[in-house]
Amino acid sequence: MTAHAPLGTPHRIPFDAPLPLRSGTLFGPYHLMVETYGQLNAEKSNAVLVCHALNASHHVAGVDEQGNLGWWDNLIGPGKPLDTDRFFVIGVNNLGSCFGSTGPMHPNPATGRAWGADFPVVTVEDWVDAQARVVDHFGIAQLAAVLGGSLGGMQALSWSLRHPRRLRHCLAIATAPSLSAQNLAFNEVARRAIVTDPDFHGGHYYAHGVLPARGLKVARMLGHITYLSDDVMDAKFGRERRAETPLFSTQEVEFQIESYLRHQGDKFAGYFDANSYLLIQRALDYFDPAAEFDGDLARAFARAQCKYLVASFTTDWRFSPARSREIVQALLDNNRDVSYAEIDAPHGHDAFLLDDPRYHQLLRHRFHQIAGEVQA
Amino acid sequence: MTAHAPLGTPHRIPFDAPLPLRSGTLFGPYHLMVETYGQLNAEKSNAVLVCHALNASHHVAGVDEQGNLGWWDNLIGPGKPLDTDRFFVIGVNNLGSCFGSTGPMHPNPATGRAWGADFPVVTVEDWVDAQARVVDHFGIAQLAAVLGGSLGGMQALSWSLRHPRRLRHCLAIATAPSLSAQNLAFNEVARRAIVTDPDFHGGHYYAHGVLPARGLKVARMLGHITYLSDDVMDAKFGRERRAETPLFSTQEVEFQIESYLRHQGDKFAGYFDANSYLLIQRALDYFDPAAEFDGDLARAFARAQCKYLVASFTTDWRFSPARSREIVQALLDNNRDVSYAEIDAPHGHDAFLLDDPRYHQLLRHRFHQIAGEVQA
Repeated sequence: MTAHAPLGTPHRIPFDAPLPLRSGTLFGPYHLMVETYGQLNAEKSNAVLVCHALNASHHVAGVDEQGNLGWWDNLIGPGKPLDTDRFFVIGVNNLGSCFGSTGPMHPNPATGRAWGADFPVVTVEDWVDAQARVVDHFGIAQLAAVLGGSLGGMQALSWSLRHPRRLRHCLAIATAPSLSAQNLAFNEVARRAIVTDPDFHGGHYYAHGVLPARGLKVARMLGHITYLSDDVMDAKFGRERRAETPLFSTQEVEFQIESYLRHQGDKFAGYFDANSYLLIQRALDYFDPAAEFDGDLARAFARAQCKYLVASFTTDWRFSPARSREIVQALLDNNRDVSYAEIDAPHGHDAFLLDDPRYHQLLRHRFHQIAGEVQA
Repeated sequence: MTAHAPLGTPHRIPFDAPLPLRSGTLFGPYHLMVETYGQLNAEKSNAVLVCHALNASHHVAGVDEQGNLGWWDNLIGPGKPLDTDRFFVIGVNNLGSCFGSTGPMHPNPATGRAWGADFPVVTVEDWVDAQARVVDHFGIAQLAAVLGGSLGGMQALSWSLRHPRRLRHCLAIATAPSLSAQNLAFNEVARRAIVTDPDFHGGHYYAHGVLPARGLKVARMLGHITYLSDDVMDAKFGRERRAETPLFSTQEVEFQIESYLRHQGDKFAGYFDANSYLLIQRALDYFDPAAEFDGDLARAFARAQCKYLVASFTTDWRFSPARSREIVQALLDNNRDVSYAEIDAPHGHDAFLLDDPRYHQLLRHRFHQIAGEVQA
């Protein structure tokens, strides 16, 4: 194995001024973990902010010093669709997450002990405002683009509404203008699995030297089902058994899909913090820009200024194409510049993280356009 | 309130001869709880067997002595689509369930203690064979029909394959020829929630004086989501909040759908046994009549002799219409007599329990035909 220099540059950025959260809490001081890629040009016009979804981080591309590959490495890097030879790419780990930015595992200044479940509830809007301070930190007045998928796509949309003149392009992939009742319902089941785990201790499990791993595993297994299409699950696992003859057991692994899900749950519970999971899920629940306009999404998007690319995947049943079309319709109602792509891909919601050629070609083309505008 | 005589007649039927289970176990002696409605005619040609799904019982219609309404009372009774003035209707509580038939809460003769998780794994085929003995008990050579929805529909299909000359009509509603990978996956999550609950005690919680209620609640909440369509959830709950202003809490109820699901979970955990839940879910997992024919469902149905009515609901995403069409295709491949109805109903999988007028009209018409054959 050859050792490579990390592609990205890590930053730990402290913020002394408190951040006003939607809940009314003034939060701070705090710090955010950030990773940047490529060079900011002299005009500071080539910056692209990449927003993460539930379980990802600021480490979006390349191999870091711990040997971990960035979560969107197939899309971002030298010569890739989001080309770090042309763009200055910024990844930010959101407040309340568990990859180094201030979160529930850090000490609550009021008590000296870990925040745990007392960490304030953060929203997509709060994250976007915190990200805007990161952009300030780099002296960037206007981003070339904000890009995100799923919960990251909600952040991209929120950017275009809260800071409409601070981005030229919004790329919102596999996302929705709000969670449906079914989305909310799945989140509630996941949350109940975690908070009713006796090892949760009301969110103060750190002090008890335990983790609510059982609940977190169940939550992740459930989440994982909603990321995959029915078809891709059938193609990948079907009813394939682990043993040739049935075991006739209610507790042992009988079908390969069971083994796969348990593995996903175990892996996740080994690195992700349960309190962060609850917070980030709740941010999904609360996102609903139409709410302050009596549910009228078109009125919510009246503030929009930038150009939009909205993309969805045909087999995504978590955030179905119909939800993306609601966004597109709201933008069209305001005569905004929007392109929409409904990509025929078999992988369900997870498709936004995969390197489907039509999808990547779409993004490559869009970033090529954006790079042209930067140079013009 | 007027007191009515119960519509049905309860029977507790003991069986001394052991039942050979698919797992190889010879099980017995055992008893089954049965409820019958209407009168068996002199020719014993007017009997209809009704098979229950996950959480139901032998009490299918009318009010019993405890004041409980039968689970399919909207369909079955005097003058109803399955008319107990014309048919002798038999409801059977399946082996391993928790409504009186021999199950995990009963003593294991080998130890004198409750079976718990040592109760043998039972399959759809085992249930059908046990039901055939109930039919024998009433001296019935051939049933006019076997009717079931969901898991009950699997039993109806299995009857037509295991005892092809002992029924004239098979009515299989909202069912599937096997679980998909996604169905298996949801079951696995529910099972993990139950068996990893510390109060489960490896399935021997009775001896500990506790119940794995936390796990069972999570399992039921999850199941409940899959019974409803996305649309009906949106129509019924949408993003409606409990309080007018957001609570900004990860643990309190914020949205009405959360409250509804918690209520469903609590209610279920109050009456259903966790070991029975695991057993019945596993029976769903194992059902796959095509498996012994290299996955060829048409070959599996070559044995079929009776007439079929297969019905599905457009918004059922648990057992989608496509799964019912697989059954219909397999029957057509064998030139069997099959009618298929795909009913446009908004309620998802639950529609089979509701009194959608087109659905009930379909069954009324079919049972009218069957009654005509009985008299002819």
